[in-house]
Formats: sequence, structure tokens, C-alpha cells
Amino acid sequence: MASKYLTNNPSKAIDECVASLNPDKVLIVTDQNVATKVIDQILIDSMVIKESQKISIPAGEDGKTLDTVVKIWQKLEYIGATRKSLVLNIGGGVVTDLGGFAAATFKRGIATVNFPTTLLGAVDAATGGKTGINFQGLKNEIGSFHKPRKVIISPEPFKSLNFKEIKSGYAEMIKTAIISDRDFYIRLLDMEKIIGDSEQLGEAVAKCVEIKESVVEQDPNEQGLRKILNFGHTAGHAFESIRNNYPLETFSLPSEIEGCNPDDKTFLKDPLPHGNAVAHGMLVALILSHIELGFDSQEITHYSRFLKENYGPAVISCEEIDLAIEKMSRDKKNSSYGVPNFTLLRSLGVPEINCQPSISSIRESLEIYRDLTT
Amino acid sequence: MASKYLTNNPSKAIDECVASLNPDKVLIVTDQNVATKVIDQILIDSMVIKESQKISIPAGEDGKTLDTVVKIWQKLEYIGATRKSLVLNIGGGVVTDLGGFAAATFKRGIATVNFPTTLLGAVDAATGGKTGINFQGLKNEIGSFHKPRKVIISPEPFKSLNFKEIKSGYAEMIKTAIISDRDFYIRLLDMEKIIGDSEQLGEAVAKCVEIKESVVEQDPNEQGLRKILNFGHTAGHAFESIRNNYPLETFSLPSEIEGCNPDDKTFLKDPLPHGNAVAHGMLVALILSHIELGFDSQEITHYSRFLKENYGPAVISCEEIDLAIEKMSRDKKNSSYGVPNFTLLRSLGVPEINCQPSISSIRESLEIYRDLTT
Repeated sequence: MASKYLTNNPSKAIDECVASLNPDKVLIVTDQNVATKVIDQILIDSMVIKESQKISIPAGEDGKTLDTVVKIWQKLEYIGATRKSLVLNIGGGVVTDLGGFAAATFKRGIATVNFPTTLLGAVDAATGGKTGINFQGLKNEIGSFHKPRKVIISPEPFKSLNFKEIKSGYAEMIKTAIISDRDFYIRLLDMEKIIGDSEQLGEAVAKCVEIKESVVEQDPNEQGLRKILNFGHTAGHAFESIRNNYPLETFSLPSEIEGCNPDDKTFLKDPLPHGNAVAHGMLVALILSHIELGFDSQEITHYSRFLKENYGPAVISCEEIDLAIEKMSRDKKNSSYGVPNFTLLRSLGVPEINCQPSISSIRESLEIYRDLTT
Repeated sequence: MASKYLTNNPSKAIDECVASLNPDKVLIVTDQNVATKVIDQILIDSMVIKESQKISIPAGEDGKTLDTVVKIWQKLEYIGATRKSLVLNIGGGVVTDLGGFAAATFKRGIATVNFPTTLLGAVDAATGGKTGINFQGLKNEIGSFHKPRKVIISPEPFKSLNFKEIKSGYAEMIKTAIISDRDFYIRLLDMEKIIGDSEQLGEAVAKCVEIKESVVEQDPNEQGLRKILNFGHTAGHAFESIRNNYPLETFSLPSEIEGCNPDDKTFLKDPLPHGNAVAHGMLVALILSHIELGFDSQEITHYSRFLKENYGPAVISCEEIDLAIEKMSRDKKNSSYGVPNFTLLRSLGVPEINCQPSISSIRESLEIYRDLTT
């Protein structure tokens, strides 16, 4: 399947895309890791890359701050950027979120083009126009909606990702499929086959980007339909927050964690990748879908088997169920303060937004989730 | 003329408006001057004002910084604001620009309602959704488009404005009329009569807000039509910048300045009000309209007489013409770097956007402007 987003020659695609937008100045936003791995190796033939000013931001979530945005604004001033200038983000989700927010607010908004270098970035942050930074420890608390003029997808940079990074992105692909297309979802469950074939992976990513773009097109500011993309994220964000922000000394260890040798405690230092958290959050959402909307329980069994095999056992302990509920109650996606808001499924590919199950149903689903995955 | 924007009972209007939006939390953004003059006197009967959390920002342009926005974000976090919360801006342009930008970027955008307390704010900053802060000495350099859910107009707070403040706002009203409605423009030239009658003034303001809302509705992100609202602003911003940012010791004095006793140098400390700068910028634009589009020269004479009488003589000296051209060349409204972009008029009420007169035409118009006003 050919796609308007997909290319096997990213240098050429970037040059053509920038030429078609005809900006007066281009600022490339990237990070040090990407600069070394992608810009210096994969994009070596691009004239735009050669000739444009660049700013390298700190890699990783810690750099996703207002201070970094100020540095990008300053660089834009320095190069004399106007309203006709372009920000070209080359990197993972941190780069596209940050560079996107800086562009969204510079002179009330200048154009952006995203070239995502991670699978997660390609199917999640780089597409759809959500931009943002962390503030007071809250993820993407400050931000805006600002659609990139173009997202260029190439499987080339994914080849340098490790398996953990691929898996995290793949979970968001499964999410995109499960809310929109039963057959595509079933196909994606054959994860090893798709990941092992760069062409198939590229096509699947491009299909996900198309699905997301089409949803976003219909509801750019997340007033309704777009919320289907939050499937799995209510519980997923809570898991992410518990596993990643909790002081290590008070972290109560699940007895076994994916890929973890009981004598090796280094995994404790690793954060739970966003996609893995969503993969687990989706099981909670499927169980809730059964309780609230009569979703087929056989599909739950099917998915939970896939989950355990590829994303490991439960990521929270029994003792953390209350904490997870508390985190969900404070999620910014909630329309009422303290009432968790879920996207659920009637059946595969048929989502229902704004579901507000009772706290007891949520507790029940978390308990079943633990039973199914431990 | 009744208007959906106009009220003689602002306390009731605020309460009804907030009730109709049904937010879970309200944060009132205001400044110390407004708090004393308006909130404690005019809005004393509003339950919303009584019961809501407030944040008072520094009065004046100096406080229009990122630091102040951070304080508003922090206050929103502190009160537990969600996506269903509301920012109610009560104040002049600095308050609505700042509070609007903080709301535009908090959780990717929450609702705002504006209650402008200055005439200039009512017809300019509070309407149309442009929000922003100053950055590195550049006005509104960082910002976004974020339409307020409602703008509540009441002539009550205008009664406490001094004549200078009224005049500054009135210039933006004339601009709104001259680009859209010949008869309304002619009526507004009878400035003393309209300003002297609070009812007529309220109605004229409401008409301006309606015209602006209608233009903005058709082009929210200033891709085209909305640029008609920039009439008079290309030269106006340059004048403002020259008169207000120039170090006093190097400021070359026009021989006479409106309301200025030659022995009294205190006016030097007064910045040139935005509206006055636009009033002068409009004469430059009318002269350019004649040169470029054959605009009727009799109307130029008519307007220049009105201008001198009410907004004083030329605000830049001959020696500052080159500097003014340089400032115009760096205006963020330009689509190409270094090429000043003007909105001009074919005739009264018939604007033409994206005019790019030659530098020699611009110089000629500035020289004629000086001849007509000195």
C-alpha cells in the first residue's frame, strides 16, 4: 500500500516538502542522539538539512520544559524568523511536542513539519497537532493544538531503534487499529512478523498515521470524536505515573516484571515506556468495555494473552490499585473534576467516548486485569 | 441599537454568561488598578466575582511577560482547574492578552470570557482571539489565536477613564469603521458628540465589536480577510516603537506635541498611546492608498484635519523617517522579510490587503504625512 506519508527516501522527501511550502527560513529542532544517528547518517543527502540552522535540545522527558521552549524562541529570533518561516522537527515525541509548541506560539503560530525518528513518535506525538511541555511535574500540562503541515514517515530511522522502543510504539499502533479497523487489529497481533519486515512495518505505520489524521481532521480540538484516540490511556497514564514518578524506595515491586531477572535490579531504573503503559491500559479498558458495554469476553482473553507474551505481567501491584484510581481521577482528560473519563469499545473497531464507569467498576476491572496478567 | 455584546448591568451579565458556560472553576485575571476601580465598585453585585479565585497581575505593558503567564498557570494548578474551567479576564489589553494566552495554553486551551475595562481593550485586544506576551522587547511576539467564548461590553467602566484613554480607544473604533462602513465612519468623526453620550458610545463600541467578530469569524488565523483590521497599524506600530522604546536622551523632539507646554517636559515620560499611534498610522495608510490605489485625496484632507485637531501634530520628526521605514520592514505582519505589508483602501469602507508599496512610495507618504500634520 502506497501512502502519501510514506517514503523510502527521506532526504528527498524532506527537500521536496520544504520546497513546496516555500518558507523564508527553516529552523531544525532535534536532539543530540537524533543528530548523530539520523541527521548525520540517514539524511545526509538533504540540502535542507545541510543549509538550515539547527537547535539541539536535551534528549529525554527531563528537557521538555518551558526553558527549552524559550531557547527555541530565542533561536528563531536570532535567525530572523518571520510568520513565513518553518520549524522542522526531527526526533521523537519530546522533539515534536516541544518544537511544535514553540512554533505554535511564535508570532502566534508558524508552520511545522515533523519527521519522526521513533515508531512511537510517528504514530503518536508527531501526528495530530497536540503540542506541549511538562509543567510542575504534570505531563503536557501546557501546550496547544497546532497541526503540522506535513508528517514525513520513513522506516529508515526505525532500523536503529532497539526492540524495547519498537514495542512501545507498536502498542500505539494496536490502539489505532483496535478503535477503527477489526481486520487491521487482527493483522497487527502478529507482531513478530510485522516488526521483522521493514516494508510491512512502514506500511502499517503509514496506515495508522492516516487513520489518526482522518480522526483529527474531523475534530481537531478534541471536542468529541478525537477522544477515541485516548483508548487505553486513562489507565495507561496512571500506570506510567505510578511506575515512573514514584520514589524508588517506596515502590512496591510486582513479583515478576517483563524481562526481569530477580537478581538484576537495573530494570527499576528504567521507566515504563509510554506504549507499554498503554498496552496494559488497553486491557483495563477492554475489561471495562465488557462490564459497561457488553464487549465480547473472548476478545479480552485473546488480547490478554498477547499482552502477557509481549508486554509482560501486570505493571501495578494489588496495593497500588487505589493509587491508580486516584491518578485516573486527576487525569486532565476528565470533563468533571474527580470523575475518570474512558473511551471504551462496543466491539472491535467500534469505540464509545465519554464513558464514566463507577469507581467500583474501575476497581473491579483493575482486579480482573491483575488476575489475567499475573 | 441593542447588541448581544452590550449591557448596562455588567454584574448580571457576567453572572448569566458564566452560568451559561457552566465551568467547574473560575479564575479571574485582573490588575491592581482594575480591582480597585471596577471590581470593587462596578461589579459589586456579581456572585461570580464574589465567589471566584482571583489573580492580580502587574498593571501596564512591563508586566506582559512570560513570568506573569507562569504565575497564572501556577494559580490555575493551585485552584485545581480542569479543561472545563474558565478564565475571566477583567481589565485592559494587557490583562486580556495575558490571561487569554495563559488560558490558550493551559491543558491545550480552556475557555475565556473577557470583560474589557478600557475602550481600547473593548474594540481591540479583548475581541477576536489574538493573545500574547512581549518577548525580547518585541510586542506580542509570543502568543496564539484563542477566541474568547464571550466578550461582555459595558460603558460603565469607561466612565472612569480619562480623556486620553478614551481617545486612544476611539482611534481603533475609527479604524474599524473606515475599513467597513462609510456612514459609520463619517458619524464617528463627530467625536465630541459620541464620547459625550455614554449610550451612543456604548452602542458604537458594540457595533465595532460586532464588525470585528464578523471579520474574525471568516478568518480566525489571519490568513487573509482579517488583515483589514491591521489598517493604520504598519506605520502605527513603527511610530509606537520609535516614541516608546527610544532612549529619551536621543529622542529628537517634534517641535510641538499635542497638549504639550514647551516648558513642561513631563509628556516625554508618557508613552504614545497605541490608539494615537494608529490614528497617525491611518493617515500614512490613506496617503499610500492614494498613491497606490487612487483613494480620493479629499478624504485625506478631511481625515488629516480631524487627526491634527484630536491627536495632535506629527509624532515623528523628519530625521526619524528612515528609522520608521526600518521598523516597518521588521514588522511581524510582513509576509516576506524586509518588505512592509500594508492594508490600504480603494475608497471609504473598501479595503485591500497585502499591499506592498515600494520603499520610495512609503518614504513619500511619510513626508506628505509630516507636511499635512506639522
